[in-house]
Amino acid sequence: MHLQSTPHFSALTNDFHAAFLEFVGTFLFLLLGLGGIQTAQTLSVLDTVSTSDTQRFLYISTSMGLSLLVSAWLFLRITGGVFNPNVSLSLMLVGAIRPVRCVLFCVAQLVGGIAAAAVVRGLTDGSLRVNTALAPQTSPAEGVFIEMFITSALVLSVLMLATERHQATPFAPVGIGLTLFSGHLFAVYYTGASMNTARSFGPAVVTGFPDPHHWVYWVGPLLGSLLGSGFYSLLKHYRNWVLVMDE
Amino acid sequence: MHLQSTPHFSALTNDFHAAFLEFVGTFLFLLLGLGGIQTAQTLSVLDTVSTSDTQRFLYISTSMGLSLLVSAWLFLRITGGVFNPNVSLSLMLVGAIRPVRCVLFCVAQLVGGIAAAAVVRGLTDGSLRVNTALAPQTSPAEGVFIEMFITSALVLSVLMLATERHQATPFAPVGIGLTLFSGHLFAVYYTGASMNTARSFGPAVVTGFPDPHHWVYWVGPLLGSLLGSGFYSLLKHYRNWVLVMDE
Amino acid sequence: MHLQSTPHFSALTNDFHAAFLEFVGTFLFLLLGLGGIQTAQTLSVLDTVSTSDTQRFLYISTSMGLSLLVSAWLFLRITGGVFNPNVSLSLMLVGAIRPVRCVLFCVAQLVGGIAAAAVVRGLTDGSLRVNTALAPQTSPAEGVFIEMFITSALVLSVLMLATERHQATPFAPVGIGLTLFSGHLFAVYYTGASMNTARSFGPAVVTGFPDPHHWVYWVGPLLGSLLGSGFYSLLKHYRNWVLVMDE
Amino acid sequence: MHLQSTPHFSALTNDFHAAFLEFVGTFLFLLLGLGGIQTAQTLSVLDTVSTSDTQRFLYISTSMGLSLLVSAWLFLRITGGVFNPNVSLSLMLVGAIRPVRCVLFCVAQLVGGIAAAAVVRGLTDGSLRVNTALAPQTSPAEGVFIEMFITSALVLSVLMLATERHQATPFAPVGIGLTLFSGHLFAVYYTGASMNTARSFGPAVVTGFPDPHHWVYWVGPLLGSLLGSGFYSLLKHYRNWVLVMDE
Repeated sequence: MHLQSTPHFSALTNDFHAAFLEFVGTFLFLLLGLGGIQTAQTLSVLDTVSTSDTQRFLYISTSMGLSLLVSAWLFLRITGGVFNPNVSLSLMLVGAIRPVRCVLFCVAQLVGGIAAAAVVRGLTDGSLRVNTALAPQTSPAEGVFIEMFITSALVLSVLMLATERHQATPFAPVGIGLTLFSGHLFAVYYTGASMNTARSFGPAVVTGFPDPHHWVYWVGPLLGSLLGSGFYSLLKHYRNWVLVMDE
Repeated sequence: MHLQSTPHFSALTNDFHAAFLEFVGTFLFLLLGLGGIQTAQTLSVLDTVSTSDTQRFLYISTSMGLSLLVSAWLFLRITGGVFNPNVSLSLMLVGAIRPVRCVLFCVAQLVGGIAAAAVVRGLTDGSLRVNTALAPQTSPAEGVFIEMFITSALVLSVLMLATERHQATPFAPVGIGLTLFSGHLFAVYYTGASMNTARSFGPAVVTGFPDPHHWVYWVGPLLGSLLGSGFYSLLKHYRNWVLVMDE
Repeated sequence: MHLQSTPHFSALTNDFHAAFLEFVGTFLFLLLGLGGIQTAQTLSVLDTVSTSDTQRFLYISTSMGLSLLVSAWLFLRITGGVFNPNVSLSLMLVGAIRPVRCVLFCVAQLVGGIAAAAVVRGLTDGSLRVNTALAPQTSPAEGVFIEMFITSALVLSVLMLATERHQATPFAPVGIGLTLFSGHLFAVYYTGASMNTARSFGPAVVTGFPDPHHWVYWVGPLLGSLLGSGFYSLLKHYRNWVLVMDE
Repeated sequence: MHLQSTPHFSALTNDFHAAFLEFVGTFLFLLLGLGGIQTAQTLSVLDTVSTSDTQRFLYISTSMGLSLLVSAWLFLRITGGVFNPNVSLSLMLVGAIRPVRCVLFCVAQLVGGIAAAAVVRGLTDGSLRVNTALAPQTSPAEGVFIEMFITSALVLSVLMLATERHQATPFAPVGIGLTLFSGHLFAVYYTGASMNTARSFGPAVVTGFPDPHHWVYWVGPLLGSLLGSGFYSLLKHYRNWVLVMDE
């Protein structure tokens, strides 16, 4: 991904344009993804035949994984298809985007999450049922560590598949979407598998922050950004560690 | 996608040939896709162990997503694998096909949908159970907006992945099929997730238009065509907005 | 796919070698695929929590689709990864392989199906539960037509994705496997979704031909071979119909 | 995959670095994969609506398949993304890595499995429920043969897709992950579908070896390594058998 400015405009104007398009892309990603979660949660309430949690979580994981896969693919050549403030932070930390763009992207992505959650609530009936929350037996500390680990996997997938240039780069969104899918299959029961503060913040704003542990979805993914970009920087610094990278 | 005429034939003859092949492709897509829906709907009626709605909708989403993925892949190098009058309209609006071809494609796709629905009814027992319909709590206006949003995602996936030329273009059907899959996971419960007037019209013709809100599947996807191709045209017009497109 | 002889050996010796490797590949494909079906069918008998038919058929479709996807990918550069006498016939009809190789392949594939079914029975307990059979309300004629249509889709996917040379050819097994997946989602309830006489013949031999309508799985896929290769030959004959093939 | 030393460091130092990175990658793979299994197993215990075994096994198969797919993709250009002592052994047997690296990789992978199992237990409540075990009616001999067959498929997918150099090599992790997925759909009920001694050994260490048949997961995959690499060596030795390899 080249997210740098071109000579046609001033860099800042370009950053604003890119941030606007990130808003659109994040809206699309979370409209489809949160929409799928809303469907699964609503069906498990309404359905006369009870839906098992296993079914519900498989449906949710598929929905989030595929919505990111396709949204990021559509926007890959427009803005890079980041849609995630934690990934934006990591891209800044490894030097792929400048700080000002990182800030604008984070704002656009958080606002995109709010807009998507509001539209899903507006277009579907009843209350919005897509908030991330901890499972009854999961402590906030456990939640933070789970979010840290799965977010670092997501961050690393962006850095290894999309930021690095190689033959499979045009297909990076497939790997990134499936990483979100895989992270959900592990953590959707324990933490809701946010991996993205915008995904948790949007619905929380729309529903009035019902979860006292909402901070978990800021701290956990933040630590994941640091862990993922730190590991990547280490790999780049000790390039001689990296044995097959320059094929 | 190059859907323009070649010098071998008159342009109109070519358009007729391409439209005939679009009919065959749309028939294949909807034979497999509607066939999968018919299976899921029939099982949920016949099954002694009740099928939850979550299972049924996951089955339907997978069936529609994969049937488009494979059908469009098989026909990508024949006609482009459009199979959707709303996508045909968008291709005309952005200048990828001429108006006469657009009209012929739309007719071929609508007739293909009727043929597929008729064959599915003929080869399976009982009534055809594949009509799109609104959920009990979903208003027609909500249905129109949901169909608009998800159709615009589908249109945008065709424009960004197949019409644009880049390294991943030969794999566009994978992204397009998964976009249909993702749109289904959100909307299959609320509207049936048509995203394609031919997909709704075919079964409606065969079953005698049982749904008083059938117009939703003409208006919603039409608005989605306009939204998707409008956004794409904006991107192309302000190319300097598009920061990573010319890699 | 180039399945022709090389100068190193006589053509016939090469055909025998290729047929032996097709036997190995068909064995692998059906060991995994029929093994997955055996698991799903056994669980639906043994499970204390009843499995709905929708779950069972989704499991079976996934199992068959992925087992062909991976097996054909592994053998793509060895023998082409055909594993299906109906596809072998189509390859001969369009001139991709010679008649003698077609006959040897068909024998190898039928024997591979028997071997896989026997090993699955040997390694799992109880009876083999993987025969294809018609649904209670499905007539043999309906079964023949369903098998004809879905087999022609599978044949066409091999011809368009693997036999034709283009950028996506190395990934043809993905499209071919997902076509089998999609065909299953439609027809697994109605006919068992054979699309491959070797897949039906192997288990039938091992279980003593319990199905009086076994002939459906010879006639239906055979007609599908003819339909698929006929349509493909038409496309090649009238190349000027084919508007985007020579990109 | 080129896993050989570079001139920058002594070969042994490089081997240690690569082994450390294999430890990290195996940890990531099994954190996501075993985490998904833990979720499925926990839900089937806690859920008020009972989860059928079919659902549970589909969830587990998806989780293991996707976690390997994405982890191996992320590490493909770092260490090759092996994460499996049985695959390490096969790579040594066909000459892709030297014996000393094979030993270091096996140790790193076994330790990575222990670490992942320990972290999954630490971050989730209750006991760890991810051990591989034989089904009630499956004998140890049957288990060994099932593991042998499915491991040989996994080994062959690494050798044919990743070790061989061709156009699809950068996408080898997709095929390798889906092979693990397909092997699970067959064997997850009968043996737990290990295909990887590190995947069985890690949880067994953390839970105190509750399974008297744990040796099955050493002997079966070992035989699979030998069978898979033996078949591959045969193919390479009689290159003239291999009819389409040099396209």
